[in-house]
Amino acid sequence: MDQQIIDLGQKVAALEAASTMANTINMEIFYWWCTALMITIHAGFLAYEMGASRAKNVLASAIKNLLAFAFVCPTFFFFGWWIYNAFPGGLTIADGASAALPWSMSMGPNLSDNATGVFWAAFALFAATTASILSGAVIERIRLTAFLVLAVILGSVIWILAAAWGWHPSGWLTTKFGFHDAAAAGCVHLIAGAFTLGVLLNLGPRLGKYNADGTPNALKAHSVPLTVVGLMLIIVGFFGFLGGCIIYNPGGQWTNIFGQPATLSSFAFNTLMGFAGGIIGGWVKTRDPFWMMSCGLVGIISVASGLDVWYPPLAFLIGTFTGIVVPMIANFIEKKGIDDAVGAVAVHGCGGAIGVLVVGVFAAGYPNVNGAPPVTFFGQLVGFVVMSLLGFVPGYAISAVMKAMGTLRVPRDVEIMGLDLVEVPIEAYPENIGRPAAETLVPTGDFGSATAVPAE
Amino acid sequence: MDQQIIDLGQKVAALEAASTMANTINMEIFYWWCTALMITIHAGFLAYEMGASRAKNVLASAIKNLLAFAFVCPTFFFFGWWIYNAFPGGLTIADGASAALPWSMSMGPNLSDNATGVFWAAFALFAATTASILSGAVIERIRLTAFLVLAVILGSVIWILAAAWGWHPSGWLTTKFGFHDAAAAGCVHLIAGAFTLGVLLNLGPRLGKYNADGTPNALKAHSVPLTVVGLMLIIVGFFGFLGGCIIYNPGGQWTNIFGQPATLSSFAFNTLMGFAGGIIGGWVKTRDPFWMMSCGLVGIISVASGLDVWYPPLAFLIGTFTGIVVPMIANFIEKKGIDDAVGAVAVHGCGGAIGVLVVGVFAAGYPNVNGAPPVTFFGQLVGFVVMSLLGFVPGYAISAVMKAMGTLRVPRDVEIMGLDLVEVPIEAYPENIGRPAAETLVPTGDFGSATAVPAE
Amino acid sequence: MDQQIIDLGQKVAALEAASTMANTINMEIFYWWCTALMITIHAGFLAYEMGASRAKNVLASAIKNLLAFAFVCPTFFFFGWWIYNAFPGGLTIADGASAALPWSMSMGPNLSDNATGVFWAAFALFAATTASILSGAVIERIRLTAFLVLAVILGSVIWILAAAWGWHPSGWLTTKFGFHDAAAAGCVHLIAGAFTLGVLLNLGPRLGKYNADGTPNALKAHSVPLTVVGLMLIIVGFFGFLGGCIIYNPGGQWTNIFGQPATLSSFAFNTLMGFAGGIIGGWVKTRDPFWMMSCGLVGIISVASGLDVWYPPLAFLIGTFTGIVVPMIANFIEKKGIDDAVGAVAVHGCGGAIGVLVVGVFAAGYPNVNGAPPVTFFGQLVGFVVMSLLGFVPGYAISAVMKAMGTLRVPRDVEIMGLDLVEVPIEAYPENIGRPAAETLVPTGDFGSATAVPAE
Repeated sequence: MDQQIIDLGQKVAALEAASTMANTINMEIFYWWCTALMITIHAGFLAYEMGASRAKNVLASAIKNLLAFAFVCPTFFFFGWWIYNAFPGGLTIADGASAALPWSMSMGPNLSDNATGVFWAAFALFAATTASILSGAVIERIRLTAFLVLAVILGSVIWILAAAWGWHPSGWLTTKFGFHDAAAAGCVHLIAGAFTLGVLLNLGPRLGKYNADGTPNALKAHSVPLTVVGLMLIIVGFFGFLGGCIIYNPGGQWTNIFGQPATLSSFAFNTLMGFAGGIIGGWVKTRDPFWMMSCGLVGIISVASGLDVWYPPLAFLIGTFTGIVVPMIANFIEKKGIDDAVGAVAVHGCGGAIGVLVVGVFAAGYPNVNGAPPVTFFGQLVGFVVMSLLGFVPGYAISAVMKAMGTLRVPRDVEIMGLDLVEVPIEAYPENIGRPAAETLVPTGDFGSATAVPAE
Repeated sequence: MDQQIIDLGQKVAALEAASTMANTINMEIFYWWCTALMITIHAGFLAYEMGASRAKNVLASAIKNLLAFAFVCPTFFFFGWWIYNAFPGGLTIADGASAALPWSMSMGPNLSDNATGVFWAAFALFAATTASILSGAVIERIRLTAFLVLAVILGSVIWILAAAWGWHPSGWLTTKFGFHDAAAAGCVHLIAGAFTLGVLLNLGPRLGKYNADGTPNALKAHSVPLTVVGLMLIIVGFFGFLGGCIIYNPGGQWTNIFGQPATLSSFAFNTLMGFAGGIIGGWVKTRDPFWMMSCGLVGIISVASGLDVWYPPLAFLIGTFTGIVVPMIANFIEKKGIDDAVGAVAVHGCGGAIGVLVVGVFAAGYPNVNGAPPVTFFGQLVGFVVMSLLGFVPGYAISAVMKAMGTLRVPRDVEIMGLDLVEVPIEAYPENIGRPAAETLVPTGDFGSATAVPAE
Repeated sequence: MDQQIIDLGQKVAALEAASTMANTINMEIFYWWCTALMITIHAGFLAYEMGASRAKNVLASAIKNLLAFAFVCPTFFFFGWWIYNAFPGGLTIADGASAALPWSMSMGPNLSDNATGVFWAAFALFAATTASILSGAVIERIRLTAFLVLAVILGSVIWILAAAWGWHPSGWLTTKFGFHDAAAAGCVHLIAGAFTLGVLLNLGPRLGKYNADGTPNALKAHSVPLTVVGLMLIIVGFFGFLGGCIIYNPGGQWTNIFGQPATLSSFAFNTLMGFAGGIIGGWVKTRDPFWMMSCGLVGIISVASGLDVWYPPLAFLIGTFTGIVVPMIANFIEKKGIDDAVGAVAVHGCGGAIGVLVVGVFAAGYPNVNGAPPVTFFGQLVGFVVMSLLGFVPGYAISAVMKAMGTLRVPRDVEIMGLDLVEVPIEAYPENIGRPAAETLVPTGDFGSATAVPAE
């Protein structure tokens, strides 16, 4: 009988070991697929930005978009991941952050670490997505090198510092204010929108965007079908993004990324309901399929902070409301002389702000475990203010320096001819619309005033 | 030694709990990815329908397509899911259906329920897919509001009632007739095709589709590349759809959705072989890449009911055969005066019918567990008849009422000018083919006879 | 107390059974999603090849591409999978290969086999991908039947024989030479590139590609946006491909496909870093978004053999280096009179060669378990030579026979008019560029010399 117990003990130990390993592998797989689907976001952004450009700038937009991804990856390896691990306490370096330094044992193939690589990859894709939010707004006139510097600062420094503060179990916004932002409406969308606004104020509108009296012209997307299919691919990829916002705890219930219990099922309910609401809101307001898809995305962003807590019909209403409001904000921004080519400030900045604040309105009092205070409107407001400033100030300041140095914008004649003709050795559509017709080459607006129109 | 046993007992209990939770989480993840990939179906449908439209109707098709998705989601939350749970017995409400009512504890974030949200989401995507099958057939002349009513009835009522009857462990078609429809050839494809046929009979052909003598003209897809890439994205998404047709039983073998043992491996074999056969069949018959891709989809549909039982080379033959037959059926339908813009009745209706019936031919006698009778041709025939009627009758009746009220179709002059010009504030291709050339504005057919041509 | 032990023993046995089954199901799911994502590769290839064609050949390219997939699936079922299982020892048939014969119990639905179907499916997709590499290079002049024969030989015979030799735990290149090719740079990319080179030498350049003095003309991709979005979809799908290169060992650590311990995390690190490097390398060298995306793919290929061992910054450097070199090689090949329409020989052949060889340079001495010798440069060189010859010789020989029989290439006048007009009953863009303008109908090069230009 002793022998029986010993045998049983060995079997149990073997089971425990196998079970632990199996759980680890399944966790690794989960984030692998999150990463894979997030590449779809970039296929979507690529289609979307090319479609949203005029024919003369299509390929220059593609180059910019691809390089944002390509430069964010290594910089996020060298310092982005470390920033997330180092600064949850504010600006003092946390213990254990050294494991995220690029020469650490965890930052490469390691048979005893089935986690760091896939976590890093998912975060690198979050970073690339954040940088891509800036990308669409500034097409058709930003200088490539200026854009790349801005993209790396946004994608590998700014947003990830915000994530350390408010999207981390030890982040001070979480532990001191109970800040609740389950799916990154704050540290990804709001911050990218605020940064983009700062850049746009210095970058100025595209030539021909505004008339002498300040009224705007539409500089039309050359292929709306390419744009809306791209947006739907972004939605596909968002399921990878949202999956990456939830922590697989082997053998236990999910927690959201700042350590509060959650389920993937709640994400499923609210993502679809917010998305549906956003499309309908966009349709009610605009009847424009570009805005309907943008507002579908807005719908998801607007419910993202509380994706783990909303009653689904409320998510539908929040999405619908935000889908109606955001095109109005975009219109307001355009009238103020700020030329945001794809509405990124309204979609991501304002959509993200609503996402963060609405948790303070409808989910105030929601309790937190691990000693964090419960959700409050004040806590959400603090998070909103911090992220707005953390996005806007560097975006404005750095682009102001670039503007002063004359390195922010392409030369006027390049912009008129089209960036593709000057920067790209091939044509987008050589058998057809590669050479824009005369009326698209010469915008209808007042050229002289283009950079002179005060933004705001 | 007592202590050893107690310790061991505790370890085993802990392992059991962790193992149960891990299995639950892995199940939740599986349906999360099914849902995500099914969004790809909608990216595909969006590309496909826009490509299949003439340039003057591209964006109106997009709007219709997006709103179908947006309206099916909430309605499927409010009553669709409940219908599935309530009516497996026929038209009496099942015990336990109240758990699917929209105010139930399960229908929202719930830390003790890691299943309902992802199941609901997968089913909501099935519903949106079913509604999208109608969507393509009726482009270029249906009134948006009429379409939305029809889409909600099909997507959140009709198909899910059929699913309760024949795609549920307690469904009466399953328990009484051994009806075997593993991957929804019946309750999704056949029923959507039958419903669509009913609608098309009342909707009538597009202006210019038929000449005075009743011979058809081709109203050509404006971008075949967009259409075929869209169809391939639908195939990608079908792996999510098919995954959603199989039940993850934590710690046990898969069952199909009506409770019969199955493997995902059999799905993998037969999906690829049916798809390959369908492409080849479509090529043999048509040499047309639009039909080759449509027939690839047909190939999967034709093997869907028996996806868990076919010997793969048989699936290849069924796919090839159906891929040859379906374009002939589409041709026949067109000659009968029924203008199905993308061949949805032939692809989904007839493809689905073949899928259901062929199980009765080649898999008759296949045994069922849980007391259901074995598969028979008669049982499959009953399922075919029930679903055909359940699809056709409401589709025909409701659209007949709409036709009588004059709310089914856009005005004649709107159709001639193109829906985009009237309904959409932007142009699809402003630098190029946004304004259709004269010969596409004025179809070559006989206008006067368009609505007069008797359908059938 | 006896009873307690018996109870506990039963619980442990039940847990063991449930755990084993759960692990098996999770493994099955993993390869199911690998397969699904690899369909995205084919959506990508479809978009990419159509975009890379001139407008007059768009749909003929699509047909060729779709049929490659459709013919590889069943042939890989009937003999491809058996070849992999039969020939790891060289050309003698291995014991146990009969389980992979098409009439074996494993090759179809089987409730006691949750593995063969999904493994086969993942391999069938590898096969289709390999065949698709040839597909792009030969567009616009190869005869469809000739292409299909070549595609089946490459996809269901050649590459899988190479995989048996060097991508299998018992493969002789693995066991005798320690050949290390974790993610198939050799048996997929190198071999497909070498085979393609052999075919191109006999196929000859497109009419108008070369002038009388041998200088090349650009025969321009008609839609670069379609091409680059297609390439990004291929990258999405590559995560499925790479997932299929690693073995899920229920309850244990991953092994790569030839049985050496690995992690998915290392794949995640190096895939992103190689991709980023490749894009940047392509940009540095070309400024051309088509090449930037191609070089992103090259970046992944160049780090594929050592995807499980690279330190990520080294992967970035290898990707960057290869991304700079490959366009130069493509240029060299073009100047030699070999018309590779999409640069497949350079991208896959040379990219794959670098991938294989660089492991011998930077990872020489890396130890192997299960008795295989450690990695050496010589071992990698042997693998490189074997795969180059195994690809090139059949590609050259079979196409030479076809050329001699006059069945390799479409007639001259068909090529001039465009393949779509002759082979396809519909037009790609009937409202616009379906009928190419005069200057695209008549290439600027010297027609007479087209087939006369000696390739090399």
